[in-house]
Amino acid sequence: MAVSKRYPVPKDIEIAQEAQIEPILHIARKLGLPGSSVELFGNIKAKIDWKLGQSDLPKRARYIDVTAISPTPLGEGKTTTTVGLVQGLGYRGHRAVATLRQPSMGPTFGIKGGAAGGGYSQVIPMEDINLHLTGDIHAVSAAHNLCAAAIDARLYHESRWSDAYFEKLGLQKLNIDPYRVGIGRVVDMNDRVLRHIITGLGDREDGPVRQSRFDISVASEVMAILALATDLGDLRSRIGRMVVAHDTKGKPLTAEDFGVAGAMTALLRDAIKPNLLQTLEGQPAFIHAGPFANIAHGNSSVIADQIAVRYADYVVTESGFGADMGMEKFFDIKCRTSGLVPDAVVVVATVRALKSHGGGPAVVPGKPLPNEYKEENLDLLRRGLSNLVAHLGIVKRFGIPAVVAINAFPTDTQAEWDLVRETAVQAGAFAAVVTHHWEQGGEGAADLAEAVEKACEAPKQFQYLYELNQSLTAKIETIARDVYGADGVDYSDESRETLEKLEADGFGTLPICMAKTQYSLSHDPALKGAPKGWRLPIREVRLAAGAGFVYPLCGDMTTMPGLPSKPAFMGIDIDESGKITGLS
Amino acid sequence: MAVSKRYPVPKDIEIAQEAQIEPILHIARKLGLPGSSVELFGNIKAKIDWKLGQSDLPKRARYIDVTAISPTPLGEGKTTTTVGLVQGLGYRGHRAVATLRQPSMGPTFGIKGGAAGGGYSQVIPMEDINLHLTGDIHAVSAAHNLCAAAIDARLYHESRWSDAYFEKLGLQKLNIDPYRVGIGRVVDMNDRVLRHIITGLGDREDGPVRQSRFDISVASEVMAILALATDLGDLRSRIGRMVVAHDTKGKPLTAEDFGVAGAMTALLRDAIKPNLLQTLEGQPAFIHAGPFANIAHGNSSVIADQIAVRYADYVVTESGFGADMGMEKFFDIKCRTSGLVPDAVVVVATVRALKSHGGGPAVVPGKPLPNEYKEENLDLLRRGLSNLVAHLGIVKRFGIPAVVAINAFPTDTQAEWDLVRETAVQAGAFAAVVTHHWEQGGEGAADLAEAVEKACEAPKQFQYLYELNQSLTAKIETIARDVYGADGVDYSDESRETLEKLEADGFGTLPICMAKTQYSLSHDPALKGAPKGWRLPIREVRLAAGAGFVYPLCGDMTTMPGLPSKPAFMGIDIDESGKITGLS
Repeated sequence: MAVSKRYPVPKDIEIAQEAQIEPILHIARKLGLPGSSVELFGNIKAKIDWKLGQSDLPKRARYIDVTAISPTPLGEGKTTTTVGLVQGLGYRGHRAVATLRQPSMGPTFGIKGGAAGGGYSQVIPMEDINLHLTGDIHAVSAAHNLCAAAIDARLYHESRWSDAYFEKLGLQKLNIDPYRVGIGRVVDMNDRVLRHIITGLGDREDGPVRQSRFDISVASEVMAILALATDLGDLRSRIGRMVVAHDTKGKPLTAEDFGVAGAMTALLRDAIKPNLLQTLEGQPAFIHAGPFANIAHGNSSVIADQIAVRYADYVVTESGFGADMGMEKFFDIKCRTSGLVPDAVVVVATVRALKSHGGGPAVVPGKPLPNEYKEENLDLLRRGLSNLVAHLGIVKRFGIPAVVAINAFPTDTQAEWDLVRETAVQAGAFAAVVTHHWEQGGEGAADLAEAVEKACEAPKQFQYLYELNQSLTAKIETIARDVYGADGVDYSDESRETLEKLEADGFGTLPICMAKTQYSLSHDPALKGAPKGWRLPIREVRLAAGAGFVYPLCGDMTTMPGLPSKPAFMGIDIDESGKITGLS
Repeated sequence: MAVSKRYPVPKDIEIAQEAQIEPILHIARKLGLPGSSVELFGNIKAKIDWKLGQSDLPKRARYIDVTAISPTPLGEGKTTTTVGLVQGLGYRGHRAVATLRQPSMGPTFGIKGGAAGGGYSQVIPMEDINLHLTGDIHAVSAAHNLCAAAIDARLYHESRWSDAYFEKLGLQKLNIDPYRVGIGRVVDMNDRVLRHIITGLGDREDGPVRQSRFDISVASEVMAILALATDLGDLRSRIGRMVVAHDTKGKPLTAEDFGVAGAMTALLRDAIKPNLLQTLEGQPAFIHAGPFANIAHGNSSVIADQIAVRYADYVVTESGFGADMGMEKFFDIKCRTSGLVPDAVVVVATVRALKSHGGGPAVVPGKPLPNEYKEENLDLLRRGLSNLVAHLGIVKRFGIPAVVAINAFPTDTQAEWDLVRETAVQAGAFAAVVTHHWEQGGEGAADLAEAVEKACEAPKQFQYLYELNQSLTAKIETIARDVYGADGVDYSDESRETLEKLEADGFGTLPICMAKTQYSLSHDPALKGAPKGWRLPIREVRLAAGAGFVYPLCGDMTTMPGLPSKPAFMGIDIDESGKITGLS
């Protein structure tokens, strides 16, 4: 035990800074990783050779995905539960590993705070995880922005110089359609004024003028590619295939066409190596790649999981937001790519979020929590349980046993826990367990760990939600009906046209990555519980040919968050010795 | 000797990749750095604790700045000479260290190529130096962009919510003047269309609309601050002092006023630690901070130099571009901050650049070199020597002995070298030496090293160019006349107003950091040699209150380069094993 517990539970950053952190070489050694594969970044972080993910060692670990019910904006402790479960499995004597996404710095400085777990279930050093870590997101941003600069530079030079000059350079004009450049630029920041911009103002040398945009880096296709690539060669090919623009005749233009795919991949040479850190109780944790789960596919890297399943008894990964979001994409996109088959799913639920689904008042970050959430209220809770039941139905659709983890809050009552547990089991959960890892670390998650171990041995029949050879619309409609519970799908004219063109261009066999709000099973964040009698609107459809999916945008989805009136950065500081304060 | 030489000299990246690279821990140990101060980044890069720069050890090293004549766009091998000199000093048995800037990735992917030296005088691993290294420039960009996002977010929230709401949050409205936001955003990329942009288009939630800009990251004041800070506390204060906007009454608003200075500094917690690498011949090289020398102060970090002078016999640093640019700023800004006094200056000259100053045809990157540069031409050379003489005059003004390093090219003739040498010595150089380090490594720089050793022992009388208590205009005019050779200075109305306001606001005692073309002693890149009979136009004056200087913009200076028609990135690729090709 690397940390001695105090009550009441102190702030996350205090716990993290008080912990006795083990040299990361010890952690790697305990896991059995060859020393030559470990590249130190200081003493407590390391990068691990991606080639370990392709070794001949058997994939021996049990493989568990942690998902959740539809969350409130405060989050329901999914990362905390993932880390707690790994600590719990460790407490019970197993060699367990967590594989997690690297958090974006945007929310860290905005409203959500950090994402390394919480209480006595954290990955450390939490400051590093929440800031640059080893620079992978920056590398993604640089690769993406190099491509964006390449496109605008080509537009500029093609508008100014003759065909003959290009030929002399050994190049051919691409005739880019300035209105069909597919990518914006990216920055790892919440910066709302960059959502819609005009670039290229000034002089003739500064153009051409275009409307464009910035997305947050974790929404970049390059990030999705990093998360899905199986090795460096695969990364190189996927980047080359990215459709980043179209020519004036409508032909797709790839990163390869712009001659930039090699340099982009060179920028990712180190980012492809998973980062090894540790839990508060000394279990290994891989933190690698971080696409958001609402606007991207929301899962950590294939490579980290491929390494982990070769060295651990249990690999616990986390997919973003609810089972409708990250988990569906985990199965239909990530597992399809990796070929790994999960043994169990953990569905995290909180009494707080269930009450909110039952019609409780809005939960707003930064504002005091209404009384409904601090006192027993079985009626609200009962009404909200429809959301949990719906999520359990989604898991069942994939044929994998589900364990419900009721993430205990001090304000919960025994009667509330009992009600959740009974409903979950009635709805087909393999088990439902109250878990106290936030307050007690691995010991507090021992029951959860035991239930998960048993679920891993239960009979299962994994199946994807859809087959790839179905049409794009059939796949979209299957997700809408079978996962979200919609009555059907309404396509905008633009999205229908795009879908037809994608089928014609040969992209029809790609899987689907829905961009949808995480706060509801529907596209409307206001619809709580398990909404019925609604149709899913598809506003726009985009192609991620390198990542290998088509992503429909359902309703209004922003790909660039904003900062609140009093952002989290106002509380963050650093003292003269280098100790960071105020991160949460 | 860590590399065995081949002839003809192969490409830079081939030499770098063939080299037997020593574990960086050995390099640190050879220099005598305490093991506890070394933070490994893999086996061949490390970060060094900044606190070593403040230890009680005596500052025992001889301290040498490498500068140059006004360069051509191809560069004249200044970094190569710096590394060659360090290798030459090593060859002669001294413990020598190079302290260099981290190159921006913009030029790496654009036109200039890498910046880790060349031939058999390089710092390795060159791929790392030219790409992310340990992520310091990304950290600078993130800190800068967090501040920019904070300003626009505050503008947005203040325009939407009442004074009472702000008070409830414990904040006061700042009443930012949207037309006087002092900073743009930054990206480490050559991306011309970001020079002038409009942000905040879209909906009410996406605003407000403003004209803004992106600069290349190395032009950020945060980079200048990183290079000048003496410790973490100093870094924190300087960032807090940055004037980033004004209120509607004209009062300066600082990063501290926006509550973002602590988080910005937290983002730089690791960037403040110098990066340790090695030369091809195993000498230590610190690579740390990288402000451009035309649009910023153009010198590597104070902290790296403060560490190096405590552990080495000789510390060789490089200031950007010519003696009029980086060297003047080295003395008047960097040395004033650090308190270190240099012992000698090396002025790098090439026959090629001197011929260009003598009226030779334009030297254009990517185009074949005209014959004048490949054949003996003493007339052109003689006329161009005025530029070398002028630069030697600038060095003399500071009271430090100058050694001219004639960086040998295979096309040079003995008669050309003799002419340069004679002229240099007549103009007051302590010595002038032909040097062959590009082809022969340290052995080829042994003569240069010997001359530099002697120059370090010569009598000197260091003096700044100006005193801080002179007025801003007096300081500007001293630089214009005594360094650039101008007849005087012409101020735009705007710049005159700014200067008056800066004096009134108490910034009059700051040093001056001129933003000027590097291709001429004047503001006009077309004026070669040592131009006479011209006046320096000051278009605009900006304040860098955190870095601690005032920077006048002379003529047209872009703070965001563009990509050429056939950018360097087109030649760069990576194979499946992770080997990068095509970097130069």
